[in-house]
Amino acid sequence: MPQYRAPLRDQSFVINDVLNVQQYSNLPSFSEASEDIVSAVLEEGGKFCENVLHPLNSVGDQEGCRLSNGEVTVPTGFKDAYKQMTEGGWTALSADPTYGGQGLPAYLNLAFNEMVTSANMAFGMYPGLTGGAAHALTIGGSDAQKQLYLPKMISGEWSGTMNLTEPHCGTDLGMLRTKAVPNDDGSYAITGQKIWISAGEHDMSGNIIHLVLARIEGAPAGVKGISLFVVPKFIPHENGEPGKRNDLICGGLEEKMGIHGNATCVMNYDGATGWLVGEENKGLKTMFIMMNEARLGVGLQGLGLAETAYQYSLAFAKDRIQGRSLTGPKNPDDAADPIIVHPDVRRMLMNQKVFVEGARALTLWTALQGDLEHRADDPAVREKAGDYMALLTPVIKGYLTDKGYDCVSEGLQVHGGSGFTREWGVEQLLRDARITLIYEGTNGIQALDLVGRKLAMSGMRPINSFFAELDGFIAENEGDADLKASVEGLKATKQKLQKATNWLVAKGLENFDNAGAASTDYLHLFGLTCFAYMWAKMAKVANAKVKAGDSDPIYKSKLVTAKYFVERWLPMADTHLARVESGAETLMALDAEAF
Amino acid sequence: MPQYRAPLRDQSFVINDVLNVQQYSNLPSFSEASEDIVSAVLEEGGKFCENVLHPLNSVGDQEGCRLSNGEVTVPTGFKDAYKQMTEGGWTALSADPTYGGQGLPAYLNLAFNEMVTSANMAFGMYPGLTGGAAHALTIGGSDAQKQLYLPKMISGEWSGTMNLTEPHCGTDLGMLRTKAVPNDDGSYAITGQKIWISAGEHDMSGNIIHLVLARIEGAPAGVKGISLFVVPKFIPHENGEPGKRNDLICGGLEEKMGIHGNATCVMNYDGATGWLVGEENKGLKTMFIMMNEARLGVGLQGLGLAETAYQYSLAFAKDRIQGRSLTGPKNPDDAADPIIVHPDVRRMLMNQKVFVEGARALTLWTALQGDLEHRADDPAVREKAGDYMALLTPVIKGYLTDKGYDCVSEGLQVHGGSGFTREWGVEQLLRDARITLIYEGTNGIQALDLVGRKLAMSGMRPINSFFAELDGFIAENEGDADLKASVEGLKATKQKLQKATNWLVAKGLENFDNAGAASTDYLHLFGLTCFAYMWAKMAKVANAKVKAGDSDPIYKSKLVTAKYFVERWLPMADTHLARVESGAETLMALDAEAF
Repeated sequence: MPQYRAPLRDQSFVINDVLNVQQYSNLPSFSEASEDIVSAVLEEGGKFCENVLHPLNSVGDQEGCRLSNGEVTVPTGFKDAYKQMTEGGWTALSADPTYGGQGLPAYLNLAFNEMVTSANMAFGMYPGLTGGAAHALTIGGSDAQKQLYLPKMISGEWSGTMNLTEPHCGTDLGMLRTKAVPNDDGSYAITGQKIWISAGEHDMSGNIIHLVLARIEGAPAGVKGISLFVVPKFIPHENGEPGKRNDLICGGLEEKMGIHGNATCVMNYDGATGWLVGEENKGLKTMFIMMNEARLGVGLQGLGLAETAYQYSLAFAKDRIQGRSLTGPKNPDDAADPIIVHPDVRRMLMNQKVFVEGARALTLWTALQGDLEHRADDPAVREKAGDYMALLTPVIKGYLTDKGYDCVSEGLQVHGGSGFTREWGVEQLLRDARITLIYEGTNGIQALDLVGRKLAMSGMRPINSFFAELDGFIAENEGDADLKASVEGLKATKQKLQKATNWLVAKGLENFDNAGAASTDYLHLFGLTCFAYMWAKMAKVANAKVKAGDSDPIYKSKLVTAKYFVERWLPMADTHLARVESGAETLMALDAEAF
Repeated sequence: MPQYRAPLRDQSFVINDVLNVQQYSNLPSFSEASEDIVSAVLEEGGKFCENVLHPLNSVGDQEGCRLSNGEVTVPTGFKDAYKQMTEGGWTALSADPTYGGQGLPAYLNLAFNEMVTSANMAFGMYPGLTGGAAHALTIGGSDAQKQLYLPKMISGEWSGTMNLTEPHCGTDLGMLRTKAVPNDDGSYAITGQKIWISAGEHDMSGNIIHLVLARIEGAPAGVKGISLFVVPKFIPHENGEPGKRNDLICGGLEEKMGIHGNATCVMNYDGATGWLVGEENKGLKTMFIMMNEARLGVGLQGLGLAETAYQYSLAFAKDRIQGRSLTGPKNPDDAADPIIVHPDVRRMLMNQKVFVEGARALTLWTALQGDLEHRADDPAVREKAGDYMALLTPVIKGYLTDKGYDCVSEGLQVHGGSGFTREWGVEQLLRDARITLIYEGTNGIQALDLVGRKLAMSGMRPINSFFAELDGFIAENEGDADLKASVEGLKATKQKLQKATNWLVAKGLENFDNAGAASTDYLHLFGLTCFAYMWAKMAKVANAKVKAGDSDPIYKSKLVTAKYFVERWLPMADTHLARVESGAETLMALDAEAF
């Protein structure tokens, strides 16, 4: 099994050179995160991911989880790794200090989470879901609920889950049937079946806190009658220690294509005791706030898996000798050249490089917006940052998982036949990656969220604000001859996105099917534009460094990669625009029976 | 597990309406294949695939093959299905009657093989590889070898394999080390290790005939010193019955991402007795003739798996109710609409429809060229058909497996979360499909074969002849207003392919890395042009039928799908051309260490 190495140098390039996060050191939580602290945290976190989590990745895939009498056993080594993770404080990195968190900025947590996913995505989902559930309680829970649950969830002593899907409803939550009947003591009896519950049952934590969507007896039909409940596996005593076993049980484990190390559970609630979180019938609102965060996390998985596949395939391409360079032997003393001399192998490596470095910049930039949304002094900065978060969430989820999956597949392809065999590890990454296009809302749902909700939000303020930011960058740098290709590329792509947006506004309102028909290509054009912005920003920084005489090879490498991005990725913009503008008519022309 | 239904109506549309194969009924083998015969053969073949092979597809995936003391046991049911297949004469369909074949046209065999792949690809590889090995013996073997082996291989009593790859060499066969030492009786002692030998060992046939590439002692280094040997598992007696066990053994089974029902073997030859096939040191030539046929077979697998994924996802999209149409309820009496009402779901279905129907037309058209190459009276027709076969082989292998894989992935996506679980069957198709981009030469190798060998062949006669055929079709139909979109789309795309070809001729010769850098996008642009031609031909036929008052809904469906192809697929042509023209400079700019 190949090694994984934490991409510390590249993270530092984005955090320090591109984002220059130290400019915010006057803000809360940033003040604790000096360049040295950030670097030390990531270095230690990287070691943990490299040495503890990554060696368990194929173990988790091959052993999977085992269910016996409602109890789930995780793969060998997972329990100990989880213990190390919680004891190291890694689950508390950017959590609220009021409840025992370390209160560091979200971008730092994101950088750590990228490495966790790269090292062992199935493992990372256990603490990841706990973080999501804790966040939902933070948003919607009462003070008593927060006091009871958050400290133990943040420390990782207890874990958490989200229970949305039922056999007959996934995307369309309005159809859900799980019911909640009030008990005399203010609690509810929850009854129903939930499926595809990641980390729903396992033996790593002392308690599992389920957040469950259910319908209170007599509630309105559809999405307006859904409430959120906290339903612990063991009902906590007043002193906070886990008590009586609740009436819920894992009824089955899903057999899946990948992420075998994570338990995907059928959860049966049979009059389980639960407590309302927030208001009656307003459960979806809380769940959606949390889900937006989860969606960014899934986008990050697209990056994390692609990074590992890139590392594997790069090592393979440097090591495997086979054939000769088209321009004559490069390795004449050996029987053949390493395959990295072949242009088509390089094409696959450069595509991966463009993606992982572009996606890293974009996710860190977005996480920084999340920090600014909550911590900036200036209300205008907070508003704009919040707008960006909302706007970019579906783009990051959809684009980074679609392209990330493609990149893992290219990484596999670099391996030739070895890529298809288990021993090289990359086929697992591809199987694991496939779920990211689906869960937390399929990528088609992300595209609808973007065109149907996020574009129109606040009178189109977010998209207009984003366009203004791009225009500002373009105006500022248009005169720089060194940056010509990147800035012109950004400008042209942004114009196409603007054109597509105008088309959507005009035609999408005229016929909603036009918006649906355009949605996926619009999302991809949006993602491409974001990458164009990130690559232009990175080229600018790298160019300045080179001009200033900095000989670190990373800067030259960034300039070449930025050029490759313009040459080989930006041409897709025209294709996406043409598809957007083709509309819904042909798509909707056939009756279902005529397919 | 969903059902698979043989696409008989669509095969008939291509064979009869589009290709009008009965125009060749004066030619040998075609004369035996009247429309009724062809239809009856495909109907019976379809039933066999639907009822016998398809139910074993998931069995094969879940059980896999088992190795014990060098003997491989195939999954439950495979042995009986193989017996039914051979007894039904399905392995002999288009084989040479001299050796017991039925001598039917190759296009008919291809239509049957598409269904076998759709129903159970891992199973289909056993008879598929036998066919390839028999073909190599037909090309290169002595009369005695043909008499001894071909009748039993064609009947399926014996099976066959191809042994090329060794641990240190796959693509670069010049490095192979397996050695052949002459024995006194004219045979050779073969010693070496071969890996990734599909169907290398199993318990379905009475003997396994291995075709093995090896180096005769003292042969020149590199590809000029490779000979081909026939090495039977049991050495046949003079009477043709299997005798003494040969000194070869299966030393291991590969653990793979997919095609678990097929035994991928490590084969150890320890002084095994083999006989030279053809001339000393000319083994690669025979192997390559056969491999071209195998490559078309792999391209066909891209289609076969996509067809099944399309059927699964279409059934799911009609059945699964979730959410409402964007333009108001279509199924108001139920809790939700079937998801086929959603434009983005339709987009995925239409992409699959474009692909499977376009690929079916292209593979059948190409198989017909193979028939004409060998059977046409006119030497000019034979030459042109042979040129097309050579030119299109890498395009079909590369484009149909790349796009076929994408289609299977879209089919999975239509299923949402269900697609990721084993019970719905589509995730197996995706795992099985992933190998098609790799074996029989990775798709990168196909692209190099196209730009480095096939374009330049015979003074560019094949490509010029293909362009002339397209120009002829365009000129003939340009005036037809009904066909405007399809014919103009073909014309524009062909011009882009011509431009890319000119660029390759100019820049590829100047710097071979330019050819390598452009190769994959050139292959895709070529594949897209072939699809544009097929869809224009199909639109023409369908339009004529509709105008003549034929109310069969397939014709309207073809016209809509042809339009969708122009709107949503052809825009990729510009992207491919831009990438081709971007050249090798940026791609080759980084040192290996700078990645």
